[in-house]
Amino acid sequence: MFQNSEESRTSLSEYGEFGLIDHLTSGFPINRESTVKGIGDDAAVIDHKDLQTVVTTDLLVEGVHFDLSYMPLKHLGYKAVMVNLSDVYAMNATPEQITVSFAVSNRFPVEALEELYSGIALAAKIYNVDVVGGDTSSSTSGLIISITALGSAKKEDIVYRSGAKVNDLLVVTGDLGAAYMGLQVLEREKQVFKVNPQSQPDLEPYTYLVERQLKPEARRDIPGLFKALDLKPTSMIDISDGLSSETIHLCKNSKTGVNLYEEKIPLDPAVISVCEEFQLDSTTIALNGGEDYELLFTVAQSDFDKIKGNPNFTIIGHMTEENERMHLITRANQKIELIARGWNAMGKED
Amino acid sequence: MFQNSEESRTSLSEYGEFGLIDHLTSGFPINRESTVKGIGDDAAVIDHKDLQTVVTTDLLVEGVHFDLSYMPLKHLGYKAVMVNLSDVYAMNATPEQITVSFAVSNRFPVEALEELYSGIALAAKIYNVDVVGGDTSSSTSGLIISITALGSAKKEDIVYRSGAKVNDLLVVTGDLGAAYMGLQVLEREKQVFKVNPQSQPDLEPYTYLVERQLKPEARRDIPGLFKALDLKPTSMIDISDGLSSETIHLCKNSKTGVNLYEEKIPLDPAVISVCEEFQLDSTTIALNGGEDYELLFTVAQSDFDKIKGNPNFTIIGHMTEENERMHLITRANQKIELIARGWNAMGKED
Repeated sequence: MFQNSEESRTSLSEYGEFGLIDHLTSGFPINRESTVKGIGDDAAVIDHKDLQTVVTTDLLVEGVHFDLSYMPLKHLGYKAVMVNLSDVYAMNATPEQITVSFAVSNRFPVEALEELYSGIALAAKIYNVDVVGGDTSSSTSGLIISITALGSAKKEDIVYRSGAKVNDLLVVTGDLGAAYMGLQVLEREKQVFKVNPQSQPDLEPYTYLVERQLKPEARRDIPGLFKALDLKPTSMIDISDGLSSETIHLCKNSKTGVNLYEEKIPLDPAVISVCEEFQLDSTTIALNGGEDYELLFTVAQSDFDKIKGNPNFTIIGHMTEENERMHLITRANQKIELIARGWNAMGKED
Repeated sequence: MFQNSEESRTSLSEYGEFGLIDHLTSGFPINRESTVKGIGDDAAVIDHKDLQTVVTTDLLVEGVHFDLSYMPLKHLGYKAVMVNLSDVYAMNATPEQITVSFAVSNRFPVEALEELYSGIALAAKIYNVDVVGGDTSSSTSGLIISITALGSAKKEDIVYRSGAKVNDLLVVTGDLGAAYMGLQVLEREKQVFKVNPQSQPDLEPYTYLVERQLKPEARRDIPGLFKALDLKPTSMIDISDGLSSETIHLCKNSKTGVNLYEEKIPLDPAVISVCEEFQLDSTTIALNGGEDYELLFTVAQSDFDKIKGNPNFTIIGHMTEENERMHLITRANQKIELIARGWNAMGKED
């Protein structure tokens, strides 16, 4: 951790003009029936038959979205794919193909990019998506990764942000705030390391939090679970920026208000204890922390029986009339207006 | 030219976390029947019915692919779209949707991004594609643009790089080398401007070259022309890196050699005269200059009648057996091995 490996370095220039992407992508298999042509032509070719295609894209910038002093490149590659796939699952669709582009400065040896790609390849394998294209460029500073994911779903299965109705239940998968607190732990250790490079951080008590930050998993299980439960959410979004801003997105797109209950927000015990250690309010962290990559969705009240008692789901509120606005109901039963304070430096639309 | 406009500057931060992309993309209409959902959800949704989808992506990096001291932002936006659409046409497909992501440092005011987007919107309008998504981020330095294009075509119409056969004719659209020489002219004027900021460059004699560099057009007319001629190329690629490297791509993917005739390479008179002015060899420029965004393709000899005399097409060579290798036949009738020396700093696969 925090150490610069100098074992083997191959200069990017050794691969020449056209060799690098071939080198990096030669290991990517084609698995999906819909992938007619992957890497190696002007464009990939995808056969969709009677399904609808969803497409989503994310840009990850060094110094903004990740810090390589504690983010191993393999994890970064894996996470970059998760960020995209999470958006596809949030449409209740199945991801099928991704393209991966990056710009990189010459300070990165080829081995570093191989590490990055090994994480991308691992994610593609586990989540059964094909890497079908991309572009590489030098950069004047740092590493930038751009991933676009294509997914498919039957028209009638796609869930938008805009379908929530008044009285629908607001439901979230998993638990919230852990990825953000993992980042806080890593940032603290980085500062300790700067002062004393000999220190050996004991991250064991923070394993869950650090894993949520460094190796998040997209909720691929949820669309299948909906199918098994014969349940179609009325609206859905993934939690990349924080529960608060995502809830606001659902409300604005659906033209509803919301009552969100503080006491219902699912928190892992590790989040609660590390929030105490850092003297942070765990509700604030869950609302604004982001990077949890859980799914937030609404279901009709009549579907309550399908989700009650399911350990994957927590009902955290219900939708109200638009003119009742968006509120957090605190443990003290106070109504506080919901505001978006995500972690990103700038906006993104998906 | 080369002047920094300070008239009106809106800080990016004024738009807050989620406002900027909404602000920038609010003017993008949805035109394609296949676009079910554009910007505003986790992912765009595209309906493909019985067509195949092609997808291609490009990353443009300030200081590597463009220099804002002579590339107006509106032109940059337009060109970024052209670069992608050109790849779609090179599949003999019709572009339908694009996603546009960018990372930008705080030195850019909102007005600059609006300029960029106005060029993107203009290209989208003229070429009839929908902007269906994207992502924005701050960057630690400079501007990075990532565009992904989706297109469609009937399965039997798609043309790959791999279908050329021995004795097929090698054909190119338009003329070559102008974009690169336009860049040389602009670079020269930049150096003059650095020495004497009062100088007013006279670019009139170089209009065609500068336009090819700053406002290239993708060959959207060519797939329709093929259809009208009842002609299907056996292989095709667009010329982004230079005639030499693209010819090599066709040969390697098709497992053929090639004889390419120097005297046949189409050059605009302006390229010939400015090459003399710069004391550069025009054949070298056409072979390695890049950024022409013309199409290079092969057709069966039996289709010769369909292309002969067509002012859009120039037959520049023919494919040979793979073991005969790839050669340029000079005006002096010498055989020189073709080598790839594109203009990019690093490789790209599409």
